[in-house]
Amino acid sequence: MIGVFDSGVGGITVARAIEQHCPGYPLVYLGDIARTPYGTKSPATIEAYSRRNTEFLLDQGARLIVIACNTAASIAGSLLRQQIATPIIDVVQPAVASAASSSASGRFGVIGTPATVRSGIYQRWLKQLRPDAVVHTVACPLLVPLVEEGWLNRRETKMIVRRYLHPLRNRQIDTLVLGCTHYPLLKHIIGPRIGQRVRLIDSSVEVARTLRQLLDSDTNLADSLYHPEIPSRFYVTDRTDSVQRLAETVFGRSLHLETTDV
Amino acid sequence: MIGVFDSGVGGITVARAIEQHCPGYPLVYLGDIARTPYGTKSPATIEAYSRRNTEFLLDQGARLIVIACNTAASIAGSLLRQQIATPIIDVVQPAVASAASSSASGRFGVIGTPATVRSGIYQRWLKQLRPDAVVHTVACPLLVPLVEEGWLNRRETKMIVRRYLHPLRNRQIDTLVLGCTHYPLLKHIIGPRIGQRVRLIDSSVEVARTLRQLLDSDTNLADSLYHPEIPSRFYVTDRTDSVQRLAETVFGRSLHLETTDV
Repeated sequence: MIGVFDSGVGGITVARAIEQHCPGYPLVYLGDIARTPYGTKSPATIEAYSRRNTEFLLDQGARLIVIACNTAASIAGSLLRQQIATPIIDVVQPAVASAASSSASGRFGVIGTPATVRSGIYQRWLKQLRPDAVVHTVACPLLVPLVEEGWLNRRETKMIVRRYLHPLRNRQIDTLVLGCTHYPLLKHIIGPRIGQRVRLIDSSVEVARTLRQLLDSDTNLADSLYHPEIPSRFYVTDRTDSVQRLAETVFGRSLHLETTDV
Repeated sequence: MIGVFDSGVGGITVARAIEQHCPGYPLVYLGDIARTPYGTKSPATIEAYSRRNTEFLLDQGARLIVIACNTAASIAGSLLRQQIATPIIDVVQPAVASAASSSASGRFGVIGTPATVRSGIYQRWLKQLRPDAVVHTVACPLLVPLVEEGWLNRRETKMIVRRYLHPLRNRQIDTLVLGCTHYPLLKHIIGPRIGQRVRLIDSSVEVARTLRQLLDSDTNLADSLYHPEIPSRFYVTDRTDSVQRLAETVFGRSLHLETTDV
């Protein structure tokens, strides 16, 4: 199975995108709701939690790991790759690759959690692919709780988005990376406020496309993971009504979330 | 020592109030930053975390436990009292007692986290003390992240507070319980928006007063806890800059936060 983990419910947008791009490949998903959010926590804590989530997915039979959380990928991605033999893909690299190849000006904006922004991962990787890159990052700590509350169309959410995007105005960016899997749910607010000429990069969609390419190019891996007869399984470390509601909003159908300890 | 735990940094307002009301009584404080917030999580998770925090404090030599978190007190308070022989006081009961005795009309508002509000604890206890009580509760999930971001004077915070308080307007309440230890940091915003005639009950101050009364009435307990030569100790399960900043804002001095696992 394809193992997918996230620090909360944002990764459910990744799971949904994978289901759409890679039908027939069952997922085992883990949302670490009991410890959410990761983005305001320290690197040591984020690494410890990411490690435990990965081990849980391996125990469940995952043969490929998708880190569906920008914060976990930014902080713990390289450590996990050193420690775990199973292939790992994450939401950061595909977003960076897509942004780097589609930008005309090489001027990028990146929004993410405080931990993701502090890690500097987007600057480093964008500059590896585009040595001319100019990268402006903004930490947006309140967007995760606003999305988790379902405040997707409230006036306060619009004002807070405007405030966060303000430092990116007049920077002549042509590409804005949504560096958190919650943010695609606010695309309709972010788009008009950053300006029509700025392309938004949705890391959830990009990672699903990258996974599709990997499966198309590695037939051994694809064969071992292709089991249309096996249903996907969704685990959460804690279950609340708002998590259930958000997951079903994203999937557009009812979804059974099993509770587990990790 | 007096053991104090909280799900995050809100309890630091309780620790500060205890230090002011009970000088010479050293504290061992635990802020469970690594798993914050509790208020949006399920009862089973909140109980498990509260139990572990309490055991940590007992291991550190606590001989009295203060649950400095309304969510933990609401969900896990009675369970902990059954399981632990050490005396336990919490932030809910003193706030209820103060509210019940000072209200003229018996019409109360209570604001808190979703878990606290769902628990129904304030209604139950207010009605025990005041059978005539009419209690209106509102869950305010975004106030904790706003306080933790330090957005104590932002326009967005004022709008969100106004939105949360709206259902309490025209309810003729004369008393509003701030049923979360973060909320005293927003008193200056809450006060003008709920109206001058409404008395605000600060659960942090009330629990410190209750502790003072307990120490004054139980000299054996007081003697065993009075050790002015021992400094208070502050533990957090995770340390970030914003936690450090908020703790020092509340205490008005530099504070050493030790990191620990629980």
